[in-house]
Amino acid sequence: MHLSPLIDRLIDALQILPGVGPKSAQRMALHVLRNNRDGGERLATALTEAVTQVGYCQRCRSFSEHSMCGICTDERRDHTTICVVESPADILAIEHTASYRGRYFVLHGRLSPIDGIGPEDLAIDRLLELVADGVEEVILATNPTVEGEATAHYISESLVAHLGAGSVQVSRIAHGVPIGGELEYVDSTTIVHAFKGRRRISELQ
Amino acid sequence: MHLSPLIDRLIDALQILPGVGPKSAQRMALHVLRNNRDGGERLATALTEAVTQVGYCQRCRSFSEHSMCGICTDERRDHTTICVVESPADILAIEHTASYRGRYFVLHGRLSPIDGIGPEDLAIDRLLELVADGVEEVILATNPTVEGEATAHYISESLVAHLGAGSVQVSRIAHGVPIGGELEYVDSTTIVHAFKGRRRISELQ
Repeated sequence: MHLSPLIDRLIDALQILPGVGPKSAQRMALHVLRNNRDGGERLATALTEAVTQVGYCQRCRSFSEHSMCGICTDERRDHTTICVVESPADILAIEHTASYRGRYFVLHGRLSPIDGIGPEDLAIDRLLELVADGVEEVILATNPTVEGEATAHYISESLVAHLGAGSVQVSRIAHGVPIGGELEYVDSTTIVHAFKGRRRISELQ
Repeated sequence: MHLSPLIDRLIDALQILPGVGPKSAQRMALHVLRNNRDGGERLATALTEAVTQVGYCQRCRSFSEHSMCGICTDERRDHTTICVVESPADILAIEHTASYRGRYFVLHGRLSPIDGIGPEDLAIDRLLELVADGVEEVILATNPTVEGEATAHYISESLVAHLGAGSVQVSRIAHGVPIGGELEYVDSTTIVHAFKGRRRISELQ
C-alpha cells in the first residue's frame, strides 16, 4: 500500500543516504511533507548545487568547488608538511582540533586488493610528486585498521623508493589509549599499541 | 573549519530531516559527494516534486497528489466505515496489514491544549459531515497516549452530540499485550488495559 507515487519515489530516493532504511525514509518523507516543505525545497537546492558544483582540489584531492581548495590556497599554512588521510571527513576531524597547520592529501580510500583498490586508485603517484616538491614531513594519518596500516606502510615504502631514504621525514600518528579513556575498557590491540608506542617521560617534557 | 560553502549548506539543509544531527548530516553529505552523485540528483528531484505537488485529499485529508487520494476513489473500499488516525503514517501501518477495507480520516495531530491544538485544527467538523453522509461505523485509531485518548473521547462525544446516540457505531481499537510479546516484559499500563479489555473465550470464536 502506498500513499502516492511521488511520496514512494521520495522514500526510495532518501535511502541513498547512509544509515537510512525504508522505515526512517518513510518517517523523513512524511515529516518534510507535513512540517517543513520550505526546508525540503532548500535541501533539494543544496543537493543539486553540491553534486553539480563540488569537485576535487587539484592539489590535495579534497572536495572543493574551485580548482584548489581553501587549505591549499591558504598562504599561512605550512607548505613543508603533508598529512595523508583516507577521506575529507578526516580533514574535518583534524581541522576541528585547530592544532595542525600543514596541508593534506586525500586518498579517497585505502589499499584493498579484495575490492580491487590499488595504488593508482589512491593517486599515490600524485602524492609522490607533491612530496618531491619541497615537502619535509609526511604524516600518515590513515585509519588504524588492517587496510589503513597496509596503506600507510605502502606509502612509506614508496616515498623511500621514490625520493631516497632520509630525504623526507615520514611519520605515523600515534595509536594508544584515548584521552579520557580508561585502561579497563580499552581493547587489547590498543593496549599493545600503547605499550609499543611508549615514550620516556623526559621525551614528553 | 569547512571544506566548502556548498558542502556546509548541504550539511545544514540535511538537518531538517528528523533524527539527523550535524555529525550524520556531514556523513550523509560526504557520502553522496563521494559515492552517489546521481542518487543525490534523483533525491533532489524527488524532494522538489513531492513538496510542490503532493497536497491533501479533500475527503480524508491524507497526502495525495490529486484532489482525492487513491483510497477515497477506490470503489471497492467500504464507504460505510471510517477509521480516524493521527497521521498518514498510521494509514501506511494499517494498510500494511491488508485487513481493513474501509476508508480513513486523518486528523494530522491530536488535541493538545498546551500546544494550542484544538478541534478546528484537526478538522473534526469535516469528519462529522463525512460521518453524517452514510457512515455506519467510526473506528477511532488515535494513539494510546493521554492526548490520543482525549482526542478519541472528544470525537466520540462530538459524534453523539452531532448525530444523536445510536445513529452511528463508534469503536476504539483494542489495547493490550502485543502479539509475540511476553507478559513479563509488558509495562503495567498495557497490562491494566489488557485485563480491562478482556473478552470471553466464546466471544473470540
